[in-house]
Amino acid sequence: MNIAFGVDVGGTDIKFGMFQEDGRLLSKWRIPTRIADNGQRIFDDIAEQLQDKIKEASLSAEQILGIGCGIPGPVDNQSFVRTCVNLGITDIYPGEELSKRMRGLPVRIGNDANVAALGEMWKGSARGKRNVLLVTLGTGVGSGIIIDGRIVNGLHGLAGEIGHFTVDPGEQEACTCGGRGHLNQIASVMGVLRYAKRFLQESREYSVLREKEDFNCIDLTNAAKEGDAIALKTLNYCMSCLAKALAITAHVIDPDIFLIGGGMAKAGGLLIDLIEKHYLSNLYLMPQRTEIRLAALGNDAGIYGGAKLILDRKGD
Amino acid sequence: MNIAFGVDVGGTDIKFGMFQEDGRLLSKWRIPTRIADNGQRIFDDIAEQLQDKIKEASLSAEQILGIGCGIPGPVDNQSFVRTCVNLGITDIYPGEELSKRMRGLPVRIGNDANVAALGEMWKGSARGKRNVLLVTLGTGVGSGIIIDGRIVNGLHGLAGEIGHFTVDPGEQEACTCGGRGHLNQIASVMGVLRYAKRFLQESREYSVLREKEDFNCIDLTNAAKEGDAIALKTLNYCMSCLAKALAITAHVIDPDIFLIGGGMAKAGGLLIDLIEKHYLSNLYLMPQRTEIRLAALGNDAGIYGGAKLILDRKGD
Repeated sequence: MNIAFGVDVGGTDIKFGMFQEDGRLLSKWRIPTRIADNGQRIFDDIAEQLQDKIKEASLSAEQILGIGCGIPGPVDNQSFVRTCVNLGITDIYPGEELSKRMRGLPVRIGNDANVAALGEMWKGSARGKRNVLLVTLGTGVGSGIIIDGRIVNGLHGLAGEIGHFTVDPGEQEACTCGGRGHLNQIASVMGVLRYAKRFLQESREYSVLREKEDFNCIDLTNAAKEGDAIALKTLNYCMSCLAKALAITAHVIDPDIFLIGGGMAKAGGLLIDLIEKHYLSNLYLMPQRTEIRLAALGNDAGIYGGAKLILDRKGD
Repeated sequence: MNIAFGVDVGGTDIKFGMFQEDGRLLSKWRIPTRIADNGQRIFDDIAEQLQDKIKEASLSAEQILGIGCGIPGPVDNQSFVRTCVNLGITDIYPGEELSKRMRGLPVRIGNDANVAALGEMWKGSARGKRNVLLVTLGTGVGSGIIIDGRIVNGLHGLAGEIGHFTVDPGEQEACTCGGRGHLNQIASVMGVLRYAKRFLQESREYSVLREKEDFNCIDLTNAAKEGDAIALKTLNYCMSCLAKALAITAHVIDPDIFLIGGGMAKAGGLLIDLIEKHYLSNLYLMPQRTEIRLAALGNDAGIYGGAKLILDRKGD
């Protein structure tokens, strides 16, 4: 029985998955991310966890196909990470760092959104597709692109940065990158909450959201489902901006399917309905609509994708 | 000596190239496109031309690797053409049509812009690159995308349709597709001339262009090079819109290089300077600029790319 490990390194915690070759998840666990020393602590911690697991499961070196690892920052075609703010690392080849701590085991590195997209293609909502765009609506808006079954990194590791499309030229506040009116500022969890507050301020209309001291995106989504006008207006506006970005992307890569993941995806079918409505109104050339679906693997997409990075490597 | 044929089917004429395996162009010629009978005449004409050439060059069936053919419309991943307005064809597999007229020789079909991009990657300005975006500024704005050395078609054959990005939301006239403010209406030869006339009408400033009864894009370009204010304003505005579209595309596929081809590319270095200036002002994330270069093969890019489609097939 051959084994592949998937590791998803986040700013808060590191997720691990041990997989059989056929995709069966045998074990998963997580540890907190300890940021120090240009990431050296992170690689030490990952290696220690994996070695403990290998011992625990009595795996031989021959059984282990390798380790696939997602990183929350740009990874270029040479698996080089120039800078990853969330992990406090710069100018490093994370694959080499990890491999040398694992007696030369094969390690493959990818951007976390790309790796999650690969996971969804393998065992999630995009099964059977070869060309996938996954958008994650979390703290920010990330996206991962798969073309012909393979991750697209881009020259600077910046493929799939649709969060930095300008979708609202009138926006006055600045995006984290310094730009204005970016999708990232609007369709992320933070963005949606910001717009809800803005719409509440701009009107005197009744809203259940006014009764709370503060609210999160679950509150907002629940309010929308119950027909709250401000909550609906917010989701409608924010998803119209997302749809605009998806339509633009369709004119570049025309994928087989769009997947929506991340915290906002908890809003479920309502979200997909709103995105589809606006997506169609932004298209002129497409003869048929492209499927838009919720991602299926949630927080596990990264570990699935990591394992798949290694399994795909066998054919290279 | 093995031979591959490249065929570039346009609305006005069909271009042919006979290539050695190493990329040497042995012979090229063209015939007018005869549109009739759902494209049947076109396939008959191509087959007749190729058979004559095969006889003339005394080629044996074993020597001929196949025929790669660019079509001026969307070609999907199954090489199906749903509709190609310029050739008056619908619901057809052009590869099968041609192959059955050529005693079963292998035929591969691609969208003309994509095939031209492949040609430029093989023997033109993008030699040595694996990820290329070619934009052709001709009657309309077309583009071809290569990722990891392969053409990206897209689910509906509509990958690379960046001509239908909305880059000027204020535009009142309609694009051929029914939308408004699309790049196609602005950075194409027709678009640039339209804007020059608009800017001439809107001002009373002196311009050498006013002295002509009508002018083409060569006149406009020459005027710009001589410092004509209206000509410069026109190119500057139209290329700022193109640059916006390239920046958007960089956030999707982050290619190794952008190539600019088509009739407008005759403006040369001036055009590239303008595009680069505006491209940089649209980027927030990219640590380095991406190279923007003029395409090198001109009208021959399609026949080169066609031959390469067949040569790549050998490795499949």
